Amino acid sequence: MAAANAANLIKDVGEGGVEAPLLANGAAVEGLVPGSGLAAELAELSGKGVEILACRNSLRSLGMAEEDLPGFVRVVPAGITELVRRQQERWAYVKP
Amino acid sequence: MAAANAANLIKDVGEGGVEAPLLANGAAVEGLVPGSGLAAELAELSGKGVEILACRNSLRSLGMAEEDLPGFVRVVPAGITELVRRQQERWAYVKP
Amino acid sequence: MAAANAANLIKDVGEGGVEAPLLANGAAVEGLVPGSGLAAELAELSGKGVEILACRNSLRSLGMAEEDLPGFVRVVPAGITELVRRQQERWAYVKP
Repeated sequence: MAAANAANLIKDVGEGGVEAPLLANGAAVEGLVPGSGLAAELAELSGKGVEILACRNSLRSLGMAEEDLPGFVRVVPAGITELVRRQQERWAYVKP
Repeated sequence: MAAANAANLIKDVGEGGVEAPLLANGAAVEGLVPGSGLAAELAELSGKGVEILACRNSLRSLGMAEEDLPGFVRVVPAGITELVRRQQERWAYVKP
Repeated sequence: MAAANAANLIKDVGEGGVEAPLLANGAAVEGLVPGSGLAAELAELSGKGVEILACRNSLRSLGMAEEDLPGFVRVVPAGITELVRRQQERWAYVKP
């Protein structure tokens, strides 16, 4: 859903017209691994400038290795802090 | 849930005391059609000044016709853009 | 999920470094009662300064008595109003 949201936003506003980082938090980090069924969609979004972020807390609690994530994924220490900090910086927030 | 949230907000703040647009995105657009079980509740909210919005991307991907929606529903090109733009304009966001 | 988010935020930023109120709305208020399985986790969060809020509308519609909630829970008249008002006051919003 988040990937579709980001794709629709870019399609509507125009590539380069908006920054739309996508943060995977909780169980959603499982969608980032190659073979999740979302790999091609995420790679395409990354190619369009969408920053793909993963929460380290979530990876750890699921026993996932950061090395198994595609190179375009950037791991942040805590997804929740990213969500709070970005909003304080006036980013909009969408929970799919 | 969103309809109940809007109704509770209006009841708490007072009719005319707040603007509470309700955006149906994704599968939620199916709740807008007459006969969804929500029709009366939505019509009542609309009568209280709640703007009822539907995402055109969602309607299309579900093969739904805009003509089948009640007259009080306003279709926006992309729900995701509406969510981002409104927050940039300082609207609060609630995801039910 | 909200309790885990609050705990992770405090762990990441440092106790005292952030205010992270937790609002239970809708069916989530059922998680606040002693014996819900979350009681110890919520008491610990409260001890770390996390304000635990419950929506009175939700309690009423579920037929729950405010007296049955732990003493550290503060009941607000309408959760939805709290969410909107806090965002207008520049609080960040996270929907778990």
